[in-house]
Amino acid sequence: MTDERPYSPGLEGVIAAETALGYVDGEKGRLLYRGYRIGDLVEHGTYPAVANLLWTGDWEPEHRMATGEIPDGVLTTLQALPKTAKPMDALRTAVSAWGATQALTYPPTPEQARALTAFSPSALAAFARLRAGQEPVASDPSLDLVPGFLYQLTGTKPDAGTARALDAYFVVGAEHGLNASTFTARVIVSTRSDLASSVAGAIGALKGPLHGGAPSEVVEQLHQVGSVERAEQWVKETLDKGERLMGFGHRVYRAYDPRAAALRKVAQSMDKKPEWLDLAIKVEDVALRVLAERHPERALKTNVEYYAAAVLQGVGLTPDLFPATFALARHAGWTAHVIEQSADNRLIRPDARYTGPQERDLPA
Amino acid sequence: MTDERPYSPGLEGVIAAETALGYVDGEKGRLLYRGYRIGDLVEHGTYPAVANLLWTGDWEPEHRMATGEIPDGVLTTLQALPKTAKPMDALRTAVSAWGATQALTYPPTPEQARALTAFSPSALAAFARLRAGQEPVASDPSLDLVPGFLYQLTGTKPDAGTARALDAYFVVGAEHGLNASTFTARVIVSTRSDLASSVAGAIGALKGPLHGGAPSEVVEQLHQVGSVERAEQWVKETLDKGERLMGFGHRVYRAYDPRAAALRKVAQSMDKKPEWLDLAIKVEDVALRVLAERHPERALKTNVEYYAAAVLQGVGLTPDLFPATFALARHAGWTAHVIEQSADNRLIRPDARYTGPQERDLPA
Repeated sequence: MTDERPYSPGLEGVIAAETALGYVDGEKGRLLYRGYRIGDLVEHGTYPAVANLLWTGDWEPEHRMATGEIPDGVLTTLQALPKTAKPMDALRTAVSAWGATQALTYPPTPEQARALTAFSPSALAAFARLRAGQEPVASDPSLDLVPGFLYQLTGTKPDAGTARALDAYFVVGAEHGLNASTFTARVIVSTRSDLASSVAGAIGALKGPLHGGAPSEVVEQLHQVGSVERAEQWVKETLDKGERLMGFGHRVYRAYDPRAAALRKVAQSMDKKPEWLDLAIKVEDVALRVLAERHPERALKTNVEYYAAAVLQGVGLTPDLFPATFALARHAGWTAHVIEQSADNRLIRPDARYTGPQERDLPA
Repeated sequence: MTDERPYSPGLEGVIAAETALGYVDGEKGRLLYRGYRIGDLVEHGTYPAVANLLWTGDWEPEHRMATGEIPDGVLTTLQALPKTAKPMDALRTAVSAWGATQALTYPPTPEQARALTAFSPSALAAFARLRAGQEPVASDPSLDLVPGFLYQLTGTKPDAGTARALDAYFVVGAEHGLNASTFTARVIVSTRSDLASSVAGAIGALKGPLHGGAPSEVVEQLHQVGSVERAEQWVKETLDKGERLMGFGHRVYRAYDPRAAALRKVAQSMDKKPEWLDLAIKVEDVALRVLAERHPERALKTNVEYYAAAVLQGVGLTPDLFPATFALARHAGWTAHVIEQSADNRLIRPDARYTGPQERDLPA
């Protein structure tokens, strides 16, 4: 039973896949989708165009995609969920139920990816309304995916600035290499399973706090700051108390997180900036200045959670919807990885080392 | 962007976990759960006792567990599924919806594992009845899990031989080391997600034909043989035509598959053997004799699919329920691995090598 092969806990540093989709360069603060800089994609495209780029490799900045219909049976499933269900559990169940209504063939295709990516925002919006005792709002095919999601969530068509800010969030959240949820999706499809099984598994993995992050803490922080005038005092007091500023510093990115930079840039370029976005920008400026004064040796920069939280609460999402909204954005990357895995598939099946009891008889 | 680290396609030979649960020894034809031989476990225990052994490490052969209740909302979900839904899709959705009704905390516990393992047979049985236009049958708490599942499926309490045969199938299917579905479950929970997310993901992985196998082909074969008298002629004619005998030979096991051996042994020991089991045993004898005569150099032995198919069709399951019934059996192993992973957790996140385009500008 001895097995002398080396153990790779967490598979750290083990190359488990080759991908042409996302490239994360933490040292230089670069994030590329198929070679294109995330900042350029945010500036020149919308989420449907970026999703299409990930699926097909083609850059068509005018590409549009509306949210999808919810099959009747799936709507019944959403209605049957407890109002207290976690939105991630609701979304995972909706994706699974959607898969059960589709005759999904293998290998997964961009058409399947498009259908699922369009379906899920409608499903999450419907659940959010149902749990609040409201009727779901049908998809408006004239709206692009992200404003369409906001419309189905609130019942009101969002203004351009709000839609633009959330679309930028969706673009920067679309793909980020081989994290745990994306890896889950690839493992599942490597058995020649299907797209919905893969994405339902990925949602389950993203649900874990070691993966999904905690942007709601940033929201709490912005609420505490309250106004631009209070920002400097609040930042200094917080650091004086030895507390952390949420939304600064990142495991991978040593330089400024390119996703935060892209979100900030789109925010700054807006003619009519929503007030909350203005607050987030000004608080960030103060925080970066104070952090640099106090810790010039440490390059503690803004991370994506900071702007994610600002944008998500700014467009009116309650914090308990943040992780599931992140999951909606990541649909593009998950499904693109599933397509890529299937195009050159090999069953992903590592080994385990047995560390249990030697062969033995049952107790008499 | 160059990344010179070695690529491990499929993670073949990479040790991704340590486990004290299952030990697979293909060379010697051994399968151990926590050190105990699979044959001994089949002989002296039932599935609930084996599941409890996997979860807790304690061998309590008298341990009993009935099938569970289906929460109202989850029953609505099962009713809302299309009758044509694949049973694996239905089971994955039911597990996900069940998770949404539970306040599952981290880390997962044996109590959670017990609840989910008890729930799923009721859910699959309900779906099988609903799609046939029948009312679901409520759990009978006086029945052990496997006869309880058959009762909820058919509406009739099974005879002892039928229940014993399917229970043995559940025991040999409970655990088999780090296959793709079990690995999926461990990856998902490694983010500190929850038990239902992990098992829903594992069901999705098991759905793939590279993992779940195809026991329905063995059923077709037994139907073609039809009777013991025809067995020898049929086996010889099939081999003469250059066709494969389904249910013989295995990727891992060079010796006789210990799961097939255990199922055969329990079958042979029965006072009142069901007729179909008798046929399977006699056809196997003929097949092994003819295979040995024709290919003495190759040790082509019976694999678990052979007896799995015989047992599953023998107890009255339609072939399209076989994969989901396998998933029910594997609940014990999946959930035990999830508990084990959580007890000494590290986020499972391998790397990818980027093979896409170099950094580039968007087309003008």
